[in-house]
Amino acid sequence: MTGPESANRVTAINDVNETSIMPRTALRSHHLLSIGDLDSDEINLILDTAEAMKEIGSRTIKKVPALRGKTIVNLFYEPSTRTRTSFEIAEKRLSADSLNIAVTGSSVVKGETLFDTARNLEAMAPDIIVLRHEASGAPHQLAGICRAGVINAGDGMHEHPTQALLDGFTIRAHKGRIEGLKVVIVGDLLHSRVLRSNILLLRELGADVWVCGPPTLMPQGIEHFGVHATTKLDEATEGADVIMMLRLQRERMQGHFVPSLREYFAVYGLTVERAERAKPDVIIMHPGPMNRGVEIASEVADGPYSVMLEQVANGVAVRMAVLYLLAGNPDEM
Amino acid sequence: MTGPESANRVTAINDVNETSIMPRTALRSHHLLSIGDLDSDEINLILDTAEAMKEIGSRTIKKVPALRGKTIVNLFYEPSTRTRTSFEIAEKRLSADSLNIAVTGSSVVKGETLFDTARNLEAMAPDIIVLRHEASGAPHQLAGICRAGVINAGDGMHEHPTQALLDGFTIRAHKGRIEGLKVVIVGDLLHSRVLRSNILLLRELGADVWVCGPPTLMPQGIEHFGVHATTKLDEATEGADVIMMLRLQRERMQGHFVPSLREYFAVYGLTVERAERAKPDVIIMHPGPMNRGVEIASEVADGPYSVMLEQVANGVAVRMAVLYLLAGNPDEM
Amino acid sequence: MTGPESANRVTAINDVNETSIMPRTALRSHHLLSIGDLDSDEINLILDTAEAMKEIGSRTIKKVPALRGKTIVNLFYEPSTRTRTSFEIAEKRLSADSLNIAVTGSSVVKGETLFDTARNLEAMAPDIIVLRHEASGAPHQLAGICRAGVINAGDGMHEHPTQALLDGFTIRAHKGRIEGLKVVIVGDLLHSRVLRSNILLLRELGADVWVCGPPTLMPQGIEHFGVHATTKLDEATEGADVIMMLRLQRERMQGHFVPSLREYFAVYGLTVERAERAKPDVIIMHPGPMNRGVEIASEVADGPYSVMLEQVANGVAVRMAVLYLLAGNPDEM
Repeated sequence: MTGPESANRVTAINDVNETSIMPRTALRSHHLLSIGDLDSDEINLILDTAEAMKEIGSRTIKKVPALRGKTIVNLFYEPSTRTRTSFEIAEKRLSADSLNIAVTGSSVVKGETLFDTARNLEAMAPDIIVLRHEASGAPHQLAGICRAGVINAGDGMHEHPTQALLDGFTIRAHKGRIEGLKVVIVGDLLHSRVLRSNILLLRELGADVWVCGPPTLMPQGIEHFGVHATTKLDEATEGADVIMMLRLQRERMQGHFVPSLREYFAVYGLTVERAERAKPDVIIMHPGPMNRGVEIASEVADGPYSVMLEQVANGVAVRMAVLYLLAGNPDEM
Repeated sequence: MTGPESANRVTAINDVNETSIMPRTALRSHHLLSIGDLDSDEINLILDTAEAMKEIGSRTIKKVPALRGKTIVNLFYEPSTRTRTSFEIAEKRLSADSLNIAVTGSSVVKGETLFDTARNLEAMAPDIIVLRHEASGAPHQLAGICRAGVINAGDGMHEHPTQALLDGFTIRAHKGRIEGLKVVIVGDLLHSRVLRSNILLLRELGADVWVCGPPTLMPQGIEHFGVHATTKLDEATEGADVIMMLRLQRERMQGHFVPSLREYFAVYGLTVERAERAKPDVIIMHPGPMNRGVEIASEVADGPYSVMLEQVANGVAVRMAVLYLLAGNPDEM
Repeated sequence: MTGPESANRVTAINDVNETSIMPRTALRSHHLLSIGDLDSDEINLILDTAEAMKEIGSRTIKKVPALRGKTIVNLFYEPSTRTRTSFEIAEKRLSADSLNIAVTGSSVVKGETLFDTARNLEAMAPDIIVLRHEASGAPHQLAGICRAGVINAGDGMHEHPTQALLDGFTIRAHKGRIEGLKVVIVGDLLHSRVLRSNILLLRELGADVWVCGPPTLMPQGIEHFGVHATTKLDEATEGADVIMMLRLQRERMQGHFVPSLREYFAVYGLTVERAERAKPDVIIMHPGPMNRGVEIASEVADGPYSVMLEQVANGVAVRMAVLYLLAGNPDEM
């Protein structure tokens, strides 16, 4: 929610050539590891800052000097064109010096641990390390040994906080608020770090969160997170304000979670008919990359309720906001 | 040809710290997909602009702010150090923010189509996407769904427009004109996108174009493109102003197009003796990377008639010109 | 040693926005291929310049315009996250335009030689090429055909000059001098380019250099380089001012140089007990990446005498100094 107080915090973003002051209320931590570490004020500060950042992306010259002379390392232990590109664009629009390290057969060839890689990077004095890692908790481990700020860009099946923030931003942009909305998250609940981060954020901001998926993909004890859980898609989507479809993460599946993709689509795929059980102004979200015809029908993905491309666009703005709040030069915005 | 009119268009390129006006006659499209889309005025505008850009590359500080704050994505579905490096240097000399996406086992791991990748990139508001793709027509498909300008950096066996532009630039620099010159293109005609783009450009500017290669590598109906076709190298090179050798694309060959590399060289390899059938001031070109001793003898490649390294140098200038004409800030040149 | 003369050379490093003059005594060559090409004055000039560069890395805005508009290509034929990252950060802090080319299945797919790759890069007018190559002497070959400055970032088992410079910088920072110190280099002497560069630098600056390793990893004729050679670790470390551990390069080993890693550690691994035979103020170095429990015990690596992370930090400063001295704009520092 954008109250008068938070509106005051974010006044104006000026041109790259000018220098003015954007009063900056700091986040309490200089890392972004988990949505669970943020209170609602902090989430709103990020979302408000992202509004200002979004405007920059629509300019002819899409660049401000807020992170000039800052070194940002994108350290990716899992390939992810989409998230890495989003961060890299965000960094460049803030004038940071950004470096990409894709750890797949590079220094790992020589058998170095994350611990040693991190300490060595740290010695080169980066300001921020953006970490994507296949192990849950890796960003926390990194933060424990680094002075640099650490941003979790996805850790195993644990969290993906900037994804939840961009989802929250997108919902707020359409609905004006998050409190009281019925938000339904559908699909591969078991393997989804997007789910975990979104539940934390949406609950903190007061949404009524439902989760829906097949019993084999339903995490045990999910109801302790303050959500409604159901295996019936029609029950979940009934009267929903927001439907968020999750990707069926076939690459993470060892064993038989789903009888076949065709059967999965038959029961849990989002079709136009099913979407129409929701509110008339429902928005349909997906973190991408999507499996067309598996978790979602192409007519829905490309249809009028879909806000998927807005999510991608907002991702750049939200990442700019996080980077700025963690490492920005206070006088250069 | 550089008439007084086009000379007027390009006045002066100033220092990175100064701001002046370079009168810019726009190209009709904000994409560069095919040489066939350009008329001779547009080709000349690009070549004239490239002259101004070439001068920048010879400065102590090789940088102008013409694309400051512009986001350029180099999206390469085929590896190409040479073309990617040339574009990346061009982008940086124009102060653009450039990103490289090499799609070989990255997001493709998660099975996303070019369509979805493109729409997602587009949502991040790039100004230009430079696309290299193994499928002919992929850049046209991309342009159909993007507001960003699309530059074809080579699509399958179809076109490679910036290569033809740099070749045209190099010929014009040596001969002062293109009209009326005998230009001979020799080698693997069947698999060459360089051939297709060059025929279109050279014909549009009035050259007398000859093509020569073994019958198995001669595209059917090639004579309908307004060129002379022959399988006899001596006939082709006789009195030539320009000899352009093509790379034998062994990696694209499925089946037996050529009996052996040794026999290929014996019949179609350019040797000093054969080069001497051309005009005394002939220039010898090759788009690189070359197979020494296959399509060209090392004495010729490294000899006095060779302009291959000039082609590479001119490639940066021509790409700067294209990028500037498609996305430049009109007031920052 | 920082005499009054070299102190004069390096006066002040100013802000990115200001322009002042740092009197620059040129290196004699515009390449850095081997430590053997440098005299002690030149080594001291680099180390003195690195002191000024180190200060930049501790600023809020870690950036000076010294290489603005310069094109630097990092051409890596061997993967090396660590060295490439260090160079890339150094380049960006100096405002250079830097490009990474990792030659592993890229243009090499098309079978181009280093000679042709280099000549093509050269045609794009880079100011510096930083080359890592698996063949000893490759940087010399490159320097022979390029106007661009060439920096050897490690060639086969031959040299790694910037590593020796950062090691020298680190020793000088702790001991105030290099002359007369007992420096012991321990481990896989046979495969180490770090060893060769360090012997040259330390001897030139007057250190008393000892080398120690198993007979199977001891290069023949090593004593002709003016060092003491021994296979007994306790003899080597006795009274040492500096102990430099080398990485056991298992990936370079064909055949049986070492009976087992456990036995290697038992005889040549640096433990706390062994380190205590050295002087009380000994510093312990390692070029990384290290094999914990193979050549060095974790207690030593992470202990009070270890300066490994300082080495990494100093690597950025030393590389900034080398880049600046080879290609810096004299008026923009």
